[in-house]
Amino acid sequence: MKIAVDAMGGDFAPQAIVEGILMAAKEFNDLEFLLFGDEAKIRKALGNQYAEDGKITIVHTTEKIESDDEPVKAIRRKKQASMVLAAQAVKNKDADALFSAGNTGALLAAGLLIIGRIKGIDRPGLMPILPVIGKENEQFLLMDAGANADCKPENIYQFGLLGSYYAKFVQGIDNPRVALLNNGSEATKGSELSKKAYVLLEEDSELNFTGNVEAREILLGAADVVVTDGFTGNAVLKTMEGTAMSLLKLIKTQLLSGGLKTKIGGMLIKDSFSEIKDTMDYSKHGGAVLFGLRAPVVKTHGSADKVAVYHTVKQIRKIISSHVIDDVVKHFDEMNAQPVSKTEQE
Amino acid sequence: MKIAVDAMGGDFAPQAIVEGILMAAKEFNDLEFLLFGDEAKIRKALGNQYAEDGKITIVHTTEKIESDDEPVKAIRRKKQASMVLAAQAVKNKDADALFSAGNTGALLAAGLLIIGRIKGIDRPGLMPILPVIGKENEQFLLMDAGANADCKPENIYQFGLLGSYYAKFVQGIDNPRVALLNNGSEATKGSELSKKAYVLLEEDSELNFTGNVEAREILLGAADVVVTDGFTGNAVLKTMEGTAMSLLKLIKTQLLSGGLKTKIGGMLIKDSFSEIKDTMDYSKHGGAVLFGLRAPVVKTHGSADKVAVYHTVKQIRKIISSHVIDDVVKHFDEMNAQPVSKTEQE
Repeated sequence: MKIAVDAMGGDFAPQAIVEGILMAAKEFNDLEFLLFGDEAKIRKALGNQYAEDGKITIVHTTEKIESDDEPVKAIRRKKQASMVLAAQAVKNKDADALFSAGNTGALLAAGLLIIGRIKGIDRPGLMPILPVIGKENEQFLLMDAGANADCKPENIYQFGLLGSYYAKFVQGIDNPRVALLNNGSEATKGSELSKKAYVLLEEDSELNFTGNVEAREILLGAADVVVTDGFTGNAVLKTMEGTAMSLLKLIKTQLLSGGLKTKIGGMLIKDSFSEIKDTMDYSKHGGAVLFGLRAPVVKTHGSADKVAVYHTVKQIRKIISSHVIDDVVKHFDEMNAQPVSKTEQE
Repeated sequence: MKIAVDAMGGDFAPQAIVEGILMAAKEFNDLEFLLFGDEAKIRKALGNQYAEDGKITIVHTTEKIESDDEPVKAIRRKKQASMVLAAQAVKNKDADALFSAGNTGALLAAGLLIIGRIKGIDRPGLMPILPVIGKENEQFLLMDAGANADCKPENIYQFGLLGSYYAKFVQGIDNPRVALLNNGSEATKGSELSKKAYVLLEEDSELNFTGNVEAREILLGAADVVVTDGFTGNAVLKTMEGTAMSLLKLIKTQLLSGGLKTKIGGMLIKDSFSEIKDTMDYSKHGGAVLFGLRAPVVKTHGSADKVAVYHTVKQIRKIISSHVIDDVVKHFDEMNAQPVSKTEQE
């Protein structure tokens, strides 16, 4: 399995990216890497740990996509950017998957313009893997977390289909529960968009659609796959991040500013508190998949450290091994190959 | 000032409602209450603290709106429901404001059908008052938190206007910062809806519009008024609740299940921890205003206890004293009275 890596994307690139890749390379013998970026900087980050065993190949380029670049323009004009070249490698079948911690919009554009959509999927979605709070090792998928600010009911239905495939084939969940994020649990609730998406999701008997779910319930594991439009999904993801971050910060401040009793208490619970921070740290759960493209494209947080990079690579390895993309392609090919029904012929 | 109270709405009605009203009645001499509901039950809840000084009047009715009633139907058919009669009292000027802990949709319907919209406001929005984390006594307004699942750009613009009035006249904030919830901070970001709302908000020179804000930042006090459509606002509000609740529960479990060291630590930080829970408990910040109606209509959580009821009454008193509704009415009257511009005449 070969992964094309945009080594220059992210706040701590290429150092954190390269270190994470090395961690993964040591653990998994079946992985090879193509690192796209500034060769001197990458070599420096690799240090003396860089064994010339052919598992890691550097492809030199000095151009890169900045975090504030306008996505489509950047992909079209910066032909030698590390992200563009890495996507090109996947397109040319020189690599099986694309990894980046860079500009999400640009990665989506690179995915769409260079790697291309799966036939039958109208819009790929951004799908982070989030922790179920209070249940170790349980996770849920949120889709779309921000690739498409405007969605049609069909897009949301397809997110359900894609998420379900991922949960089944990559996470090994039997009959994954797919729920629609909504402002109430009753079937009649919601916006025009969510009401129409509800009907499409319900009509597909192959999906284990469990109905509407409210945002209050999702972190408690109410569903394996939670689908919504990219605007709402993005707001939900960022609210989770913001609330957890603010709350943990507040607790820390309170403990530090308290009296001696509180300070001692704070010291005694330090370990437990670290575990909680770990649970909420969703970089450990892997990156966000740009799902719906003809190859695995996975994005990790811009602020990802080497551990987050390592976990994302581990996730990519699972995605490649699962052949989930092939399964989705097959599903849509079969759907399109089905004989046209009577009503449609008339 | 007279408040019409739906004494039968809410999980702990009428007990918690009546107890909260009594707390407020004792503190504020200038308040009178009309309690609509089952007289025997209300009298029992009032107990011997019910002084016959005319400050609290009971209007007996046995009908009530259930939490799962279909809003518009319930308001139209249950003519003797406590919520309907309370709204009628406000409509007839027998009371200055309406308070309920019942079915939010029904309260919105009662507001629209009985009390009516402010002329010029197309849709009232639900506006909760939320805590800024880490800054005691600082708050922000979120609007619309769920009254309108589908919004037009004009609605979001009007939420900005309404929120700004509230922040200025009720909360005493000078030149309140109004921000648009969006999936990125740049002006060009967002859905079709948010891009159009951005233009309208920016065009109004009387608003202190500070641009887009991401959900990650709002709990940190990035703006005084955060506007969005009711579907997204609802998801954001419920995600905050869910994340905070799950996280605090997780911390509690961790501390209780830890070793002796952790348990002792947990005991030592107990007081600090209670303070944090208090900060997050937004019932202390008052209820959610259904803003845009011809009188103050305020909703508190269905699970509100007497303290939450007390705080909401305190907030209603502030709203009535501020004459904010009159100011909004005046603003729209003046706007409509403005001479038609040349372009419009052509």
